[in-house]
Amino acid sequence: MKLEFWFEFGSTYSYPSAMRVESLAANKNIEVVWRSFLLGPIFKDQGWNNSPFNLYPAKGKYMWRDLERICEEQNIPFKRPSVFPRNGLLAARIACFYADADWLPKFVQSVYQGNFAHDLDISNTDLIADCLENLNLDSSHIIEEASSEQSKALLREQTERAIELELFGAPMFVIGKERFWGNDRLEAAIKWAEKQGSLPK
Amino acid sequence: MKLEFWFEFGSTYSYPSAMRVESLAANKNIEVVWRSFLLGPIFKDQGWNNSPFNLYPAKGKYMWRDLERICEEQNIPFKRPSVFPRNGLLAARIACFYADADWLPKFVQSVYQGNFAHDLDISNTDLIADCLENLNLDSSHIIEEASSEQSKALLREQTERAIELELFGAPMFVIGKERFWGNDRLEAAIKWAEKQGSLPK
Repeated sequence: MKLEFWFEFGSTYSYPSAMRVESLAANKNIEVVWRSFLLGPIFKDQGWNNSPFNLYPAKGKYMWRDLERICEEQNIPFKRPSVFPRNGLLAARIACFYADADWLPKFVQSVYQGNFAHDLDISNTDLIADCLENLNLDSSHIIEEASSEQSKALLREQTERAIELELFGAPMFVIGKERFWGNDRLEAAIKWAEKQGSLPK
Repeated sequence: MKLEFWFEFGSTYSYPSAMRVESLAANKNIEVVWRSFLLGPIFKDQGWNNSPFNLYPAKGKYMWRDLERICEEQNIPFKRPSVFPRNGLLAARIACFYADADWLPKFVQSVYQGNFAHDLDISNTDLIADCLENLNLDSSHIIEEASSEQSKALLREQTERAIELELFGAPMFVIGKERFWGNDRLEAAIKWAEKQGSLPK
C-alpha cells in the first residue's frame, strides 16, 4: 500500500508528521510517497493572503502551544520560528524534482528542523545548500536542476494537482480517494491504508 | 482531576466527543465538567457569519467525510443533517442552567444524536421536550426555567468566559490553563489531565 504525504515547508503541523511518517508507515509495510506542494495559491483561493494562524490570532496562539506540546511528546526539538510562515519555495522545488531520491526524506526533515527547531531562514539558498551538503550531496548541481524551468513547472503541476484533490491545508495524507488532514489524523490514515491493503483485490 | 468539555450543539466534531468523553475520562478517574457555549458570537468576531465549513467548501466536504469515518470507527450512528449548522440555543441554555444535573450528559448526547444521527431539528422546542421526556424528566418545567432571564444571562456569561479563554472552536477540552482543540485531541487532553493529577501538589 501507498500513502501520499502532502506537505508544505511553511506548515507547522507538517513538521512533526515529516519526522514520524516514515517509521509509522514502515512498521505496517506501507510505502510513503512524499508530495511537496505550495499552500500559498490555495490559501489565496480561499481569500487569505497569509497563514490562517496569523489571520486568526487566537487560533495561532493555540497552535504554537499545541505544537510545542506535540514536539515534547514526540521527543523532537522545537523552537518557535521568529518569522512565520517562511518561504519554502526552493526546498519545495527540490523535494518535488527529487521526490524519488533515497535522500529526499532526510533532506525534508533537515529543512523542517532548520525552520522549527533552529529558527533558520529556509528561504535562504545557503541554508538549503547546507542541508544538502550535510547529506554529502552536490548542492550546486541539485539547486541548479531544481531551479530549471522543468522543475518549476513540476511544482506548479503538483500544486495544481493538490487543488484538484481539494487539499486545503497541510499535512494531508492521501490513500486512493481518502484524505486525512492534520498530524493528529496520521494514525487514522495509516490504519486506513492497512485496511485497504488487506482487502481482497 | 477535572476536564472541562466545552461544546456547541451545532458543532459537528463535538458529537463524537460528547459520546465518548465520559467513558474515556472515567477510566482515568477524571471528572468531566460539561460547558455549553455558543460559537456564533465567536465566529462573528472572526468575521464569519456562518460555519467555516460552509464558508470554505473544500474544508466542509472533507469534514463530512471525516466525520462519517470517525462515527463508523466509534460505532455511533451518523446521518448528515439536511440543515447545517442547526440552532442549538434552547438546548445550550438547558445544558448551561442544568450543568450539574446527573441527567445532563444523557440529554446532551440525545440532542447530538437528534442532530447528527437522525437529522432532526434541534431548534424545535418539541424535539427538545422529547429528549427530556425520554429521560423521564419534566420537560415543561425545565424548558420554562431554561428560558428565564437568569438562564439566558448564564449562557451569555459562559460564552463570554469562552471568549476570555480564547476558545475559537469546538469541541475544546480545558485542563487548568491548557486547551486541546478537536475530537482528535481528546486522548491528549485525557493524558494531560492524568499527568497533572499525578504531580505533587
